Amino acid sequence: MAEKIDGKVRELLEAPNVVSVATLDKNGAPDVKVVWADLDNGHVVLNSAEGRQWPENVRRDPRITITVINPENPYEYGQIRGRVVEDTHEGADQNIDALAKKYLDKDEYPFRQEGEQRVMFRVEPERVKLHGG
Amino acid sequence: MAEKIDGKVRELLEAPNVVSVATLDKNGAPDVKVVWADLDNGHVVLNSAEGRQWPENVRRDPRITITVINPENPYEYGQIRGRVVEDTHEGADQNIDALAKKYLDKDEYPFRQEGEQRVMFRVEPERVKLHGG
Repeated sequence: MAEKIDGKVRELLEAPNVVSVATLDKNGAPDVKVVWADLDNGHVVLNSAEGRQWPENVRRDPRITITVINPENPYEYGQIRGRVVEDTHEGADQNIDALAKKYLDKDEYPFRQEGEQRVMFRVEPERVKLHGG
Repeated sequence: MAEKIDGKVRELLEAPNVVSVATLDKNGAPDVKVVWADLDNGHVVLNSAEGRQWPENVRRDPRITITVINPENPYEYGQIRGRVVEDTHEGADQNIDALAKKYLDKDEYPFRQEGEQRVMFRVEPERVKLHGG
């Protein structure tokens, strides 16, 4: 059952704030990475590259917790618990460029590596909460 | 096998930066909370109150991932993967006061609630990493 991302949580995700993504590693232990994120059509959109660990994690177990701290007040943070509902290469290159625009104000993602294949994930929110707000 | 917390990761944890703690909820899904932290004798020390969720999580499964983002450069973050090796009420009140001193420059923790029982956890680091550094 999808929940809506609204209000302050939405505002924190629309701003160029990094988010932490917590997933489960192959032993079922919590793994956390800090990444860029965007919102699209009620989903959180995340981008990574093939070969990295957290994409493997969400392919094994789609459960994910996304946390975004308010940089102006670290006691306030938005949190989305949900699951990955889409995993695609299609549009992943355009998406990383859009994220580079949002976070770095660059038209093209400047850290692309030779042979790198980008991948885009959509997360459907199941629980959305603002902590300390 | 304990690993040492040194260099920039140590510096980030010694400064009054909030940390995120990722644990496993009762369904084994990743749960994240943003809290205060300190270092003592090679361990990360965390403080909570009885009745909250993440203390229950680490009692069920002691695996924990602690992440601290550099507030001056959000692409740099320290990460400690480890497990809870001590869970005690003893000294937990003094510890939350010490954390209030560190984070708020107050001699006494100002958010104590009626009847609240504080609890202190020690985390033994198994993997320590600086990302994006």
